[in-house]
Amino acid sequence: MKLTIKKEILLEALNKVSKAISTKNLIPVLAGIKFELKKKKLTLTASDNDITIQTTIEGVKDEDFQVETEGSIIIQGKYILDIVRKLEDEYINIEVVDDLKILIYTANSEFNLNGISESEYPNIGLEESKKKVDIKGGILKNIVNQTAFASSNEESKPVLTGINFNIVGDVLECNSTDSYRLARKVVKLDKVSEETYNIIIPSHNILEFVKILGDDDNIVELHIFNNKILFKTGNVKFESRLINGTYPNTSNLLPDEALMIMSTNINEFYNVIDRVSILTSDKEKNIVTLETQGNTLILRSSSAEVGRVEEKMTVSKNNDEDIKISFSAKYMMEALKSFSTETVDIHFVGEIKPILIKSKEDETLTQLVLPIRTY
Amino acid sequence: MKLTIKKEILLEALNKVSKAISTKNLIPVLAGIKFELKKKKLTLTASDNDITIQTTIEGVKDEDFQVETEGSIIIQGKYILDIVRKLEDEYINIEVVDDLKILIYTANSEFNLNGISESEYPNIGLEESKKKVDIKGGILKNIVNQTAFASSNEESKPVLTGINFNIVGDVLECNSTDSYRLARKVVKLDKVSEETYNIIIPSHNILEFVKILGDDDNIVELHIFNNKILFKTGNVKFESRLINGTYPNTSNLLPDEALMIMSTNINEFYNVIDRVSILTSDKEKNIVTLETQGNTLILRSSSAEVGRVEEKMTVSKNNDEDIKISFSAKYMMEALKSFSTETVDIHFVGEIKPILIKSKEDETLTQLVLPIRTY
Repeated sequence: MKLTIKKEILLEALNKVSKAISTKNLIPVLAGIKFELKKKKLTLTASDNDITIQTTIEGVKDEDFQVETEGSIIIQGKYILDIVRKLEDEYINIEVVDDLKILIYTANSEFNLNGISESEYPNIGLEESKKKVDIKGGILKNIVNQTAFASSNEESKPVLTGINFNIVGDVLECNSTDSYRLARKVVKLDKVSEETYNIIIPSHNILEFVKILGDDDNIVELHIFNNKILFKTGNVKFESRLINGTYPNTSNLLPDEALMIMSTNINEFYNVIDRVSILTSDKEKNIVTLETQGNTLILRSSSAEVGRVEEKMTVSKNNDEDIKISFSAKYMMEALKSFSTETVDIHFVGEIKPILIKSKEDETLTQLVLPIRTY
Repeated sequence: MKLTIKKEILLEALNKVSKAISTKNLIPVLAGIKFELKKKKLTLTASDNDITIQTTIEGVKDEDFQVETEGSIIIQGKYILDIVRKLEDEYINIEVVDDLKILIYTANSEFNLNGISESEYPNIGLEESKKKVDIKGGILKNIVNQTAFASSNEESKPVLTGINFNIVGDVLECNSTDSYRLARKVVKLDKVSEETYNIIIPSHNILEFVKILGDDDNIVELHIFNNKILFKTGNVKFESRLINGTYPNTSNLLPDEALMIMSTNINEFYNVIDRVSILTSDKEKNIVTLETQGNTLILRSSSAEVGRVEEKMTVSKNNDEDIKISFSAKYMMEALKSFSTETVDIHFVGEIKPILIKSKEDETLTQLVLPIRTY
């Protein structure tokens, strides 16, 4: 293998696959990135057994990418990334000598790294399915950023550590819950899906994938299998395992009719809750109590050792009903933050019923926060 | 105590003293900030027994600071800081009611905090000495930022965790060493000091003090006592304990005459060392080897598992002597970073002699890095 490549092009590709480099030392070869050079196409692959990322460099103009000899080798991921990042030259030469020695050099720098034979790399399929589902990158990114935070971090409830993707016809419904709150996003696909799917994607993995997406809004293909999913977009393939198990049915959590709907500016409401929760900030689920008196909203919290706080703001309501209800400030704030709209509607059903947060400006998103009984 | 104050003014003062709020629960009252309001002067004090910070708010125009009742109280530091930071109103009212209840309120917010009686606060002198030493804030900041990094973090060698301040006449010499490297800064004071001083100030504490200084270049008064030092500038007093013990004599480390002096651009030299140390980055003191061949500088490092690297750059030298010497890349890079000049001169005395780093552009600073024997 022997090539010359523009630094920026190689660095961009390395950054993409680097998230999958294994940092555990269980399988040493997975700490490496597989380089495969064939004709004028360089394929980089990294995998930590949980996710696999592959990207290709091709279609680059001749002056930025020259191939002298084809070949394959595994280069230690952490070092190659650091080397390419820190080299200041415009072009970088990479050459395999003596079978498993890798020379990385420019005019004044020469790195000589120990490589690993390609034959030791596990066989990773990255197969595509015939029945793919297409979704715009920007929409997938919104789905993930608006729902993943509501997943559980507790490995004792594996299904709740993922986002449930439900595809029926041209409707994709995504749910994420840790059993104290729920984030739901429903979007329409451009094409009707041939198959129906009901899968659970690890939240941590799909968060990594949407980070790679950047700002482009290209189509992402979802290739869904029994136990894994392949995301394919542009020159990137990203594969994640799926979580086994049945996702809880969350539809029954969504109340039919609200007792009262309160409308408010998101930022203003967020800041009030933020202040009211200061005194309870030591606790994991800082509880605040909300009460309406006509169009006055009163928020309170207290802590025996520290003191108590009360904040007031003016809101508009759809009727004269009043409510008094307690909830986790942290969960409510995270739910509010997930909206990119200016206002939200808070649907109250009753003191011990879930609180629904929706926005007329974006009806694809629903957040739900369970109340906390304080007496 | 009852007052109304502009939020920004109170927040700035709270930020200044907040670094001294104790986070350990040994003495609960030290988790608080002492508020003392007398005539039109509000004094805030915080102390964690290691450092004490005091700042005063006075001379503020009437519309921004109104005093209704004098008084003193201790308010829990963490909460008052968070409350004032997050309140969005321009003015904040603070009032002590029922002896030890503190009301902090604006139009729509009301916090009711539990306070502690002023009488429970330890008696902290913050005395001033008659024989103070004056130094410009900007110069003190440079001293600390250019030397503190070379101090030791190991509590087993207490004297090396501080910066040694030596004042004789109008010369202030500061030394900081962890026994592997040395940072020395020598500055001229505007006035001759009546006394001579040889003290050790905890690096961690004086770093906190210069952070408070901000960008102003006001005079800082040093009031030096047997076991403590008081820094006084503007409306801030900052007291730190001193470290007991005798600081090692470091003068004998500085070689008289160099075998060869190499001149180089700092950034270029820094980046080369940075790259050469990539392969050894797992080790604490990543060793690199430097060799000159005429005006060519060659830097190398290697690791049996990872591989090896060689970088070349052109330097100028004061004579034809060549050198081969090994040192810690980390220590050399930190020494180089402490210079704000464009070029440095590296003085080599011999393979097993300290390496001196100086700059013709700023002769107040000397950095010294000990070589490492690699054979």
